[in-house]
Amino acid sequence: MVHTAELIAVGTELLLGNIANTDAQILSKELSALGINVFHHSVVGDNPQRLREVVETARGRADLIITTGGLGPTCDDLTKNVLAECFGKKLVFNREAALRMEAYFKKLHPDSGKMTENNYQQAYLPEGCVPFQNDWGTAPGCGFEVNGVRVVMLPGPPSECAPMFRERAVPFLQDWTDGVIASRTLRIFGMGESAVEAQLREHMNAMKNPTLAPYAKEGEVELRLTAKADSEEAAQALMAPAEAALRRRFGQLIYGVDVPSLESVCLELLKERSLTVSVAESCTGGLLAQRLTDLPGASAAFKGGVVSYWSQVKHDVLNVPNDLLFQYGAVSEPVARAMAEGVRTLTGSDLALAVTGVAGPDPDDRGNPVGLVYVSIAGQGETFVRVIHAAGPRARIRHLAANHALDLLRRRLSGLEMG
Amino acid sequence: MVHTAELIAVGTELLLGNIANTDAQILSKELSALGINVFHHSVVGDNPQRLREVVETARGRADLIITTGGLGPTCDDLTKNVLAECFGKKLVFNREAALRMEAYFKKLHPDSGKMTENNYQQAYLPEGCVPFQNDWGTAPGCGFEVNGVRVVMLPGPPSECAPMFRERAVPFLQDWTDGVIASRTLRIFGMGESAVEAQLREHMNAMKNPTLAPYAKEGEVELRLTAKADSEEAAQALMAPAEAALRRRFGQLIYGVDVPSLESVCLELLKERSLTVSVAESCTGGLLAQRLTDLPGASAAFKGGVVSYWSQVKHDVLNVPNDLLFQYGAVSEPVARAMAEGVRTLTGSDLALAVTGVAGPDPDDRGNPVGLVYVSIAGQGETFVRVIHAAGPRARIRHLAANHALDLLRRRLSGLEMG
Repeated sequence: MVHTAELIAVGTELLLGNIANTDAQILSKELSALGINVFHHSVVGDNPQRLREVVETARGRADLIITTGGLGPTCDDLTKNVLAECFGKKLVFNREAALRMEAYFKKLHPDSGKMTENNYQQAYLPEGCVPFQNDWGTAPGCGFEVNGVRVVMLPGPPSECAPMFRERAVPFLQDWTDGVIASRTLRIFGMGESAVEAQLREHMNAMKNPTLAPYAKEGEVELRLTAKADSEEAAQALMAPAEAALRRRFGQLIYGVDVPSLESVCLELLKERSLTVSVAESCTGGLLAQRLTDLPGASAAFKGGVVSYWSQVKHDVLNVPNDLLFQYGAVSEPVARAMAEGVRTLTGSDLALAVTGVAGPDPDDRGNPVGLVYVSIAGQGETFVRVIHAAGPRARIRHLAANHALDLLRRRLSGLEMG
Repeated sequence: MVHTAELIAVGTELLLGNIANTDAQILSKELSALGINVFHHSVVGDNPQRLREVVETARGRADLIITTGGLGPTCDDLTKNVLAECFGKKLVFNREAALRMEAYFKKLHPDSGKMTENNYQQAYLPEGCVPFQNDWGTAPGCGFEVNGVRVVMLPGPPSECAPMFRERAVPFLQDWTDGVIASRTLRIFGMGESAVEAQLREHMNAMKNPTLAPYAKEGEVELRLTAKADSEEAAQALMAPAEAALRRRFGQLIYGVDVPSLESVCLELLKERSLTVSVAESCTGGLLAQRLTDLPGASAAFKGGVVSYWSQVKHDVLNVPNDLLFQYGAVSEPVARAMAEGVRTLTGSDLALAVTGVAGPDPDDRGNPVGLVYVSIAGQGETFVRVIHAAGPRARIRHLAANHALDLLRRRLSGLEMG
């Protein structure tokens, strides 16, 4: 039987346009992959009467209602009360949830005594529900079923909503997803989405199982294969030849399958080879170091870096010769080279990356255009420099510049052409 | 009379999660500013029956229905047909719209002859409507009124929807928009959402105009005042005493009103005072520098920084004495102090920030717990160190640590207690 979901987002901030309903996007993608139809999204404010009406409409046309938001400690947070009322359930105090929150609060505020009273509101859950422990925030979620309609309540912040769905709601819905859906995500750096899509278009439309869909991510493209079969093994077997065909087509542009990011691939390669890296950053201003150190265990391979925003710092700290800075300017091939070699010497790392460029919004004082960036990699032997012409706003240029630096590192560590 | 709008987005790509409903966010913001309430957003696929039902529900609870999407040339584009049917109108050929499209097509494809037949579908509009010429794309929109309910149809792409609303729909709604809604956002760092709310709860419920609502952001709280009045001046006058009362209550915890972020406040203060800053980061790994340099014009005040992830780099680059590192460990008050002083000397900046701590997931090799962080600020005179016990996942600890460092900088620059 095919099930139908309606997503109800609760929050006046959505109706005021303070935030977009990204939860609906995330959940819709996940539900499609599970084979559950999504026919309606609804958004309603922190108003019990209107929420009640929306829930009544939803239960008449969907057998899965997923709410997002309105589970917090403030008086605006009324989702649980209204849903419990609509489905004839009482809210009962969940001792385990309360203890968990107390522990979380104590960890957050070790010196401030007891948790405030309003926080306990979050520990009241509909009787007979399956509580969803929230390991990504405070408010627990839950799931229950009444007369064939299932209700799932998730917290609103996307950083909590997404993992709560995957880790808590999916097991709760397991019996509704007969058959197994498996997917593989091939990640591509170095070719734009429309170019990838143009290469694949006819191929894609012909594919039924597995299906193939491209997703544009900032400066990258994801290709997701999704197969449906009776078992995990059968689904994997369906995807294997399709993955092989994609690998033949895109070759070294594919930097990983089911990997979280370019930086995580780099860190794993560094660890495997017992090598260390350091970074020298100008226009990325710390972004490259930040992305590498977002990963737990980064200290095994990442020694440190220098954000040489001013030329003076390039000279004083990284030892970039003043005559290079004077002759070619800070945004130049020779300076990118000297920055990478300088930070490598400074930290004694095996490899070193450098980035210098114009992130915008204005051209630099030498008239170099916004988006011109040099990235380089130094190690034993010759230093390599790649020049990039990136487009878009400041944040995108910085992100792409960091991607290119990481791509150099990945290629070097994998013995590929530097491209 | 206050009017109530419902936004209906039409498109299966929204229900599959391929895109987020950003049109709803844009339009909600614009409608709030016009004093028109938005009580519901709905999303429905390219399905005439379900769209019809959603429209029938909407006309029972709103007197303004705005649709986005489904105006294009393909057979999925059914918004006009369904809305015209629901409101008892015929679609009639609009010659002006057709000529405009032909011209647009010729400009886009100068060599490809005549426009394809399916494009003419877009020139059929409900009889008696006000056509909305689309200068940002192909498909025209329109507006009409039946029995006191107004219908506005806008194209789906946000780059068309937003200007079409402002330039075409707003004039169509002019006679409905008496009154102005204005808001002010006070930003607080240093107190949690539930504590802020506990202080304000009674007060908030008593407030009608302006209203007051708290929003939790990562490690911060926003308080939003919203007032409705006949003019912008009158709305501002309603908010002024409420803002003053909040300032008396929260004092130095309020770091700005209608400001984008803690780092932007810091950067503005640095520029006003013609001071420079540099940073030394361990557990934040570049995040602090990255946040400061995300802002255009950061180079006016930010000289650079050192990511001293390894103790060796703390010593070799920042000149942190080895005996401090040995005696107290890298995560300690004396090392935080030495890092800030070290990077200040290295870069010659007026002020310097340092962060050292345990971001997790594991305690450090001295057994310091995850979340223990020291942040410090050095300048002329004494170096100040603050100790933090942060909770949550790695990313949150890093974000909070950077917030605390920025808070030290803001307090120093504003002559406040370091707290």
